[in-house]
Amino acid sequence: LYKQCMQTVTLIPGDGIGPEISSAVMKIFEAAKAPIRWEERNVTAIKGPGGRWMIPPDAKESMDRSKIGLKGPLKTPIAAGHPSMNLLLRKTFDLYANVRPCVSIEGYKTPYTDVNLVTIRENTEGEYSGIEHVIVDGVVQSIKLITEDASRRIAEYAFEYARNNQRTSVTAVHKANIMRMSDGLFLRKCREVAENYKDIKFTEMYLDTVCLNMVQDPTQFDVLVMPNLYGDILSDLCAGLIGGLGVTPSGNIGANGVAIFESVHGTAPDIAGLDMANPTALLLSAVMMLRHMGLHDYGNKIQTACFDTIRDKKVLTKDLGGNSKCSEFTAEICRRIQDMA
Amino acid sequence: LYKQCMQTVTLIPGDGIGPEISSAVMKIFEAAKAPIRWEERNVTAIKGPGGRWMIPPDAKESMDRSKIGLKGPLKTPIAAGHPSMNLLLRKTFDLYANVRPCVSIEGYKTPYTDVNLVTIRENTEGEYSGIEHVIVDGVVQSIKLITEDASRRIAEYAFEYARNNQRTSVTAVHKANIMRMSDGLFLRKCREVAENYKDIKFTEMYLDTVCLNMVQDPTQFDVLVMPNLYGDILSDLCAGLIGGLGVTPSGNIGANGVAIFESVHGTAPDIAGLDMANPTALLLSAVMMLRHMGLHDYGNKIQTACFDTIRDKKVLTKDLGGNSKCSEFTAEICRRIQDMA
Ligand SMILES: CC(C)[C@H](C(=O)O)[C@@H](O)C(=O)O
Ligand SMILES: CC(C)[C@H](C(=O)O)[C@@H](O)C(=O)O
Repeated sequence: LYKQCMQTVTLIPGDGIGPEISSAVMKIFEAAKAPIRWEERNVTAIKGPGGRWMIPPDAKESMDRSKIGLKGPLKTPIAAGHPSMNLLLRKTFDLYANVRPCVSIEGYKTPYTDVNLVTIRENTEGEYSGIEHVIVDGVVQSIKLITEDASRRIAEYAFEYARNNQRTSVTAVHKANIMRMSDGLFLRKCREVAENYKDIKFTEMYLDTVCLNMVQDPTQFDVLVMPNLYGDILSDLCAGLIGGLGVTPSGNIGANGVAIFESVHGTAPDIAGLDMANPTALLLSAVMMLRHMGLHDYGNKIQTACFDTIRDKKVLTKDLGGNSKCSEFTAEICRRIQDMA
Repeated sequence: LYKQCMQTVTLIPGDGIGPEISSAVMKIFEAAKAPIRWEERNVTAIKGPGGRWMIPPDAKESMDRSKIGLKGPLKTPIAAGHPSMNLLLRKTFDLYANVRPCVSIEGYKTPYTDVNLVTIRENTEGEYSGIEHVIVDGVVQSIKLITEDASRRIAEYAFEYARNNQRTSVTAVHKANIMRMSDGLFLRKCREVAENYKDIKFTEMYLDTVCLNMVQDPTQFDVLVMPNLYGDILSDLCAGLIGGLGVTPSGNIGANGVAIFESVHGTAPDIAGLDMANPTALLLSAVMMLRHMGLHDYGNKIQTACFDTIRDKKVLTKDLGGNSKCSEFTAEICRRIQDMA
């Protein structure tokens, strides 16, 4: 009976410390008895028909079937001419929304406490169109592309997310005072969508103002939605507020129900294989994944065990300020989960 | 003899609290015996021949002659169709570099101490080209324009600034991993110019990485140079680190030796005329101006008196955490200057 409820997740361990932190997450999931069956795949791009870079067919097939992926860091690009794996994955699965909850972790000291916000980044267009030209020698243009469809889609996602996650406000972040037509279109779609979510407060703010206010008092923000580049910036800025990429989870929501959750830190090749890595970012991404799958109880249990371990300060990896190995930190989280049962 | 050394500065008091904080600055300059003669002008745009918005000819003429301006906040745009005064001034005087020193002020508490960096923003092109089109219904493009000339000019300004202000490193901030051609061109020019400044350390960093590191540890940064939009964001972010726009000075460097120094906060109409405004941002901008004019001794004296007043905490305006009026805060700074003599 238990077996029947298992759901498959495509696990992309990744490079460098990826395999270590992935196995840490698997151990913790086992301790929590999370009903997940892992299907391990390698997504590193290969050259497909016509010389186009693509992710290996068995990885694509697994994702298409499972719909849900958990991904460690990837060494990327692996060679000259090799594409950015981030961009390739976004394209392959039309991962249109990057979602990053930034929540202060008690016991992990940063200049801020009580941060509790979510950045939602449009992930498919904008400044990332890839369209650029040399006009004349010494004059280059890059094209920022904003569409009604993508803007509406991300706005709808943001409001749905807010509603489903007990959040009360959505702020659209823009520079429509400068890019009147493109950011103007984005903003118009946000306003239209807001009309359908009267339960959620809607506000608009300039990106520069958001940045200024963010570092002065991040507690004033809740859900923020924005075009691609602004999201690239703000999501990293907000990660910095709570302690950096080592503790910040991330999820990418795609069309057709696909979603990939990932740690956004690097592969840390210098410490790979040394049992020194911190699995927190991947673990919290896996918690996001569980919630996305409706498995809130498992997610909450794992998150509590992780946060309690950090607050307790006794068993921490080096980057978190401790002396423990990845395996010890993992075991401590498992122990706490078992104690809860 | 004293009179012969006087230099003329065009004073643009501006709107709202502008006149009050301008007269505070004038009083403090008088106390410091700074050899400045003020020529007051109003720059609010008027409709010129052919219906084009322009700044009034007597203001333009004064700036062309004095080359140096000090400007308070402007209510802008004053009516529908009226242009942004910031953009109009940038254009009129080809103000290609926006310079913002962000230095922690002792006694004014923020989450950070020891911030001491300068953002240098390209101010004429990039995402601010104003070129936008509707491609088809629901699809809009904005054009980001990067030129070799403007990139070289701002890079040269940044390195000259570093050298002339005892700074040791310049970091170019970019997204050339995404905008390979446009940010790539900007970066290439920075690299080329760096070759001529072997005394200054040159580094390159992604904008997202800068934002993340900035909120974690701003003390690692020195001079930062970047395209227009990135500068808009980072300069406000950094202002936030040291206490906001009320204490952050700003200078705009133009072609032909023109420069306009300004407070970048708003007109605060709610407290205008009530002797409650904080003149610090305009005063520190005026200090930047004095240094730009080679009048370092006057600049240092005024800055010291201002910082001492803030550190002392006895006479502070409301926004700085005190109960004093603008005139009292101003008198206290004047008193300290007179005591120095
Ligand atoms: C690696 C790079 C292409 C990417 C981006 O700029 O989007 C990264 O910064 C991110 O946020 O995933
Ligand atoms: C008012 C606006 C046009 C301006 C900008 O975006 O450049 C402002 O944010 C600034 O930094 O001066």
